[in-house]
Amino acid sequence: MPVLRSHRTAAAAMAFLSIVLSPPVQAQSPAVRQWRQAHEHAILREYVGFLALPNVARDRGDIRLNADSLLAMMRRRGLEPRLLESGDAPPAVYGEWRVPGATRTIVLYAHYDGQPTDSAAWTGSHPWRPVFRTARLDRGGRIVPLPAEGQPIDPEWRLYARSASDDKAGVMAILAAVDAMRASGITPSSNLKFFFEGEEEAGSPHLDAILRAHADVLQADAWIIADGPVHQSGAKQVVYGVRGDVNVDVTVYGPTRPLHSGHYGNWAPNPAMMLAELLASMKDDAGRVTVAGWYDDVQPLGPAEREALRALPANDRELMAELGLAAVEGGGRPLVELIAEPSLNVNGFESGGIAAGARNVIPTEATAVLDLRLVLGNDVARQAGRLVDHVRAQGYHVLDREPTPDERRAHPRIARVRVRPGGYNAERTPMDLPVSRAVLRAVQSTTREPVIAVPTLGGSLPLSIISAALETRTITVPVVNHDNNQHAENENLRLQNLWDGIETMVAVMTMER
Amino acid sequence: MPVLRSHRTAAAAMAFLSIVLSPPVQAQSPAVRQWRQAHEHAILREYVGFLALPNVARDRGDIRLNADSLLAMMRRRGLEPRLLESGDAPPAVYGEWRVPGATRTIVLYAHYDGQPTDSAAWTGSHPWRPVFRTARLDRGGRIVPLPAEGQPIDPEWRLYARSASDDKAGVMAILAAVDAMRASGITPSSNLKFFFEGEEEAGSPHLDAILRAHADVLQADAWIIADGPVHQSGAKQVVYGVRGDVNVDVTVYGPTRPLHSGHYGNWAPNPAMMLAELLASMKDDAGRVTVAGWYDDVQPLGPAEREALRALPANDRELMAELGLAAVEGGGRPLVELIAEPSLNVNGFESGGIAAGARNVIPTEATAVLDLRLVLGNDVARQAGRLVDHVRAQGYHVLDREPTPDERRAHPRIARVRVRPGGYNAERTPMDLPVSRAVLRAVQSTTREPVIAVPTLGGSLPLSIISAALETRTITVPVVNHDNNQHAENENLRLQNLWDGIETMVAVMTMER
Repeated sequence: MPVLRSHRTAAAAMAFLSIVLSPPVQAQSPAVRQWRQAHEHAILREYVGFLALPNVARDRGDIRLNADSLLAMMRRRGLEPRLLESGDAPPAVYGEWRVPGATRTIVLYAHYDGQPTDSAAWTGSHPWRPVFRTARLDRGGRIVPLPAEGQPIDPEWRLYARSASDDKAGVMAILAAVDAMRASGITPSSNLKFFFEGEEEAGSPHLDAILRAHADVLQADAWIIADGPVHQSGAKQVVYGVRGDVNVDVTVYGPTRPLHSGHYGNWAPNPAMMLAELLASMKDDAGRVTVAGWYDDVQPLGPAEREALRALPANDRELMAELGLAAVEGGGRPLVELIAEPSLNVNGFESGGIAAGARNVIPTEATAVLDLRLVLGNDVARQAGRLVDHVRAQGYHVLDREPTPDERRAHPRIARVRVRPGGYNAERTPMDLPVSRAVLRAVQSTTREPVIAVPTLGGSLPLSIISAALETRTITVPVVNHDNNQHAENENLRLQNLWDGIETMVAVMTMER
Repeated sequence: MPVLRSHRTAAAAMAFLSIVLSPPVQAQSPAVRQWRQAHEHAILREYVGFLALPNVARDRGDIRLNADSLLAMMRRRGLEPRLLESGDAPPAVYGEWRVPGATRTIVLYAHYDGQPTDSAAWTGSHPWRPVFRTARLDRGGRIVPLPAEGQPIDPEWRLYARSASDDKAGVMAILAAVDAMRASGITPSSNLKFFFEGEEEAGSPHLDAILRAHADVLQADAWIIADGPVHQSGAKQVVYGVRGDVNVDVTVYGPTRPLHSGHYGNWAPNPAMMLAELLASMKDDAGRVTVAGWYDDVQPLGPAEREALRALPANDRELMAELGLAAVEGGGRPLVELIAEPSLNVNGFESGGIAAGARNVIPTEATAVLDLRLVLGNDVARQAGRLVDHVRAQGYHVLDREPTPDERRAHPRIARVRVRPGGYNAERTPMDLPVSRAVLRAVQSTTREPVIAVPTLGGSLPLSIISAALETRTITVPVVNHDNNQHAENENLRLQNLWDGIETMVAVMTMER
């Protein structure tokens, strides 16, 4: 009751939640929290060992060590684990907890691989040598050892390591939730299946093959995706959709060998400048993508989703201050609205050298990596095709490979445009399905703060692959802090988010039938 | 005689040379060539040893080893060497060959430091482990050992190493010329001084201090600069001017931490895109610099220089084919004319990562390194100031340091613009001075092919520092092949250019009084 009352007194902007959440929500048993409080040291010791394993999907040997470790962790919990494989691709690690009499089956999903990272860019620690800090690095957090068993652990501490948040935190929250339930004698309300993917950060190129090869084993009413951050305000959230994603590499060419900028400058075309002009042609001053047709086939949100969007807390101002931004794109429209649209982001670019590596040359080529986010209605191939058309419209001869010397002599502007494999479309689960409501209510049972229901997350997960291969629904239940430096150097997890995540996962595994 | 006849029958475009060169030129004594032919192995062995010393100016220990080695090389030749120092800066290595009765003094200049380079970018060899190749790398040149003493060495072979061309070749040609003269009993026509600089590629930040501290020792009628490439056609050239040069680092800022491109794309400004737009604003489609005032204070060429420019061989078409360029900048104007103007080149840029290092983030910053070339009339500070004004005109708050968090929150666009120290102005020596004519005639004495007289090279040397500090004249006499990958990976020297360079240097040291 107090839960719902506090909820009903929240800002008018949150009113839609009461619609979704009524009738009242039952609070979670205190046994889960008590078990966690008594086992924090053990949980973190196991987690640190798991994080110490390098986990970039392309490093197949490393990934196998992660899968082996995960098999052992699941075996210790009686989850009958095994690998689901497709060739030499990073395997999915699968397990089960069957519940006699249960009429519903859910799959708990997380991924154990992490984004590639440059160790040298990390500050004071190494991506695969986890350290605890007393606070966030840029707020003066110092490295500290884990206190002795029996000594309290500050929940505001951060654990710094690659995948500390994205997404071994999902794996760890799920496995610790299983421990808590076993220890407390709590039985799941659904048959549980566990599916831990090993190449999500590489774009899940083999996920479809793995799902289809093991479709019989993987049948379920819904997949619960434990990935992505909770809301920037710290509130828990349940997310019903994600954007699609595809990466595109664009390289433009200058002279066939680096030229002395004095002897040839003003005359030989500079590929860095060419790429700058090409990129600049892709967006207007307000950050709107100017590629023809970019927004054409966006499927509009339904009334429920539009209302949910309007109800989302608006914290753009606070975020801007936190991120050191005096202005943002989008012409005044809020972040939550903008990330429901397709995007074009420059992940990075490079040409020649900078800083001590700079030399007075005209470089031979310049490369940018673009990240295209897609929403419902967009199609990976169609959206990438629009980008190619745009490059062509800027006067470029477009190739999907290195140009030959003759081609270079024939075409003033050549661009190599490579659409990376593994791109996938957006996915959205209607918010008013029974399972959609049950998950939201379950998460709400763990907290007095209103849980936020998000129609579509800005981030991407290969959920369309799952729903298409298995004809199921996906609902995302994030665990980690939003300021986790996900995908970048100095990735970190706020410990309280792991503690809260364990309770969240227990709630989902025991949600109303 | 035959020399001049062949010269007079050359294209009408070369007619101006006959004016400069008349009266007839005396051919060089065959003793120099004979000595070289008998000593090629010894010259190359000594040279390979010298090239094996890493020589980036910022690596002070390395540079000292180079200077020590050069001292020993000059001591063996009786040139009474010593170091001219300024603090812990890379020292200049100085020597003398006094000639009783000589009324003119010339300084032979070269530099022994090289551009920084990324060893990993070299193909099949290492910058400081010199190798011989049978031809240019991109034309299938294979690595071969130096033939046994007594076996012939193909003069078309290339020697691959950092500074093989730029500019230890200048040092080596000068020292081998001294050997040839001593062995052949040839006496210089001038008092000779030798000045080998150790931080030219770092922008000569201490050259002025060294010159002024040792101005009495360094007095001379002219400095002969053995640096830069001969003409692309292979013809020898004498160069009367060089452009000035200054580097500028430009960094623009996005969010204070890397952001997930899905959760924040379309909203958080992307510094890579901002930098692309900023760079694109600096040039028009024809490659013309659009920075206000960029061409305003260019001092026009005089009639003699304009005529010399017109007379330069036009090989733009051949160069385009060689460099794989289907189009060039400048609206159809020839290269020789364009490099007599100020320029703005993007040496390189970087933001986020590319290829395997790419991650789906909005990066925190993006940096470009620019290279501004200056001509007579331009001033380093004034030209850099115009660039800063341009950045400001694009809406940027310009700083010369990292912005503070408060500044980032206050200004939508912040650029850090750092004008690197060590920039210098252009320099030009009139082509009709007696010493100007004498040098051209001396170089012409070594070849039947017409020597090309160039009013201004596109490249830069700190010659304005020399002429201003010592009130002297500078004339550049290049040695190396133009396709040497100078300043880049896979730098190389065509051996015949070293052989020719020895004869050129002897000619200058013995030029008419």
